[in-house]
Amino acid sequence: MPPFISFEGLDGCGKTTQVRLLADYLTQRDIQVAVLREPGSTPAGEWIRELLLGSLNKELDPLSKLLLFYTDRNQNLHKKIIPALSEGKWVLCDRFADASAAYQGYGLGLDLALVETLDRMVIHGRKPDVTVLIDIEPSLARSRASDRNRRSEARNRQSPQLSLPFLGDNDDRFEAEFLRFEAESLDFFRRVREGYLQIAAREPNRVRVLNGSQTIEQLHKEVLGLISPFLPGNRCDGVE
Amino acid sequence: MPPFISFEGLDGCGKTTQVRLLADYLTQRDIQVAVLREPGSTPAGEWIRELLLGSLNKELDPLSKLLLFYTDRNQNLHKKIIPALSEGKWVLCDRFADASAAYQGYGLGLDLALVETLDRMVIHGRKPDVTVLIDIEPSLARSRASDRNRRSEARNRQSPQLSLPFLGDNDDRFEAEFLRFEAESLDFFRRVREGYLQIAAREPNRVRVLNGSQTIEQLHKEVLGLISPFLPGNRCDGVE
Repeated sequence: MPPFISFEGLDGCGKTTQVRLLADYLTQRDIQVAVLREPGSTPAGEWIRELLLGSLNKELDPLSKLLLFYTDRNQNLHKKIIPALSEGKWVLCDRFADASAAYQGYGLGLDLALVETLDRMVIHGRKPDVTVLIDIEPSLARSRASDRNRRSEARNRQSPQLSLPFLGDNDDRFEAEFLRFEAESLDFFRRVREGYLQIAAREPNRVRVLNGSQTIEQLHKEVLGLISPFLPGNRCDGVE
Repeated sequence: MPPFISFEGLDGCGKTTQVRLLADYLTQRDIQVAVLREPGSTPAGEWIRELLLGSLNKELDPLSKLLLFYTDRNQNLHKKIIPALSEGKWVLCDRFADASAAYQGYGLGLDLALVETLDRMVIHGRKPDVTVLIDIEPSLARSRASDRNRRSEARNRQSPQLSLPFLGDNDDRFEAEFLRFEAESLDFFRRVREGYLQIAAREPNRVRVLNGSQTIEQLHKEVLGLISPFLPGNRCDGVE
């Protein structure tokens, strides 16, 4: 069975870029890859994503958010992740269950027992083989997100975003997440980061912490180091 | 605290009509009423309703549906039901938690323990004071639903439905539910009915079964009989 690899970290940590770089690397080596993200990846998931990241976001309470993330996860798991692995594809997923524990649990203060109950209900033990946690200072996440907001807003002035859920791969929609970012306090992101680090401390074999203040190229090399045991051929294949 | 009354039964059983008749009756007696429905009632709930009853419905697995219904219920409870009761309003809700047990549990075959877990997570014991279960033969439900489908389709030919979630009180949207109806087998509705009757057998004081083959007027009188203990003044006020 090929590996299931999730990427986690604060908004703006650079995980989406690293997912793409790894997907390109694998594709060039004729390895089939499914690139997924949460929320999203399925048509229902994109509908849920729009609810979670759109203007209705502010009326959702933490438990509603948690239930929506797990609905999306249930769809992603059964419609995308399990079928892709069965077809021999590597699965790279931009966020998975750790994000719920970090954001809705540690960040928004929901009882972690609720997250564990939904884990049992939806993913029942099907955790990623490797989780790449890109760790950055909350203040760095905020400044990167602000830069993105400005670029996104400038682009929106030229061509306003649709308010409908999209069903494809549209970079502009990623940006919606960051429009929400500024509304959250730096304290919230400190709690989320702390949550991620506690998860990593509990499961050090699965969750590997990388320093997100490095350059994109340095980080990519470290990601390749982590996934090299899964590459065909010898262990050093992946590290260039 | 004023009463929280839910209405349950198969699609086409006439509960929506009975909710309206009771709301009119109460309003005429200067009793404040909040008329709610599930899924729906809140803006996020209407977004979820569109996902559950729209064209993406067929890609949702039973657990995803269950999670979506409970997300909607969580929003309805905290944004509508609890605030309305606190303001002294009677709450009439067109479906509540029993529908999840009957449809996703008994009907779609999900383990009832999942429904109970979500009940504890979301409603933790806040059940309706009275649940009016309008019991009809599955075949009657089907024939009523078919009539509605034809009327709805005729109306749609004159003015096509919007594909966006609506945020108001639009009868056409109710009909979408019935477009889904024909796709389900009669067996499914037999299981749902059986589930409702089992719930009523377990909680006979809360869940009151009315015979839905009566006329609208007869049913309305029986509903008034059930709710009369909550009316101001003597017990017979409500039965005309």
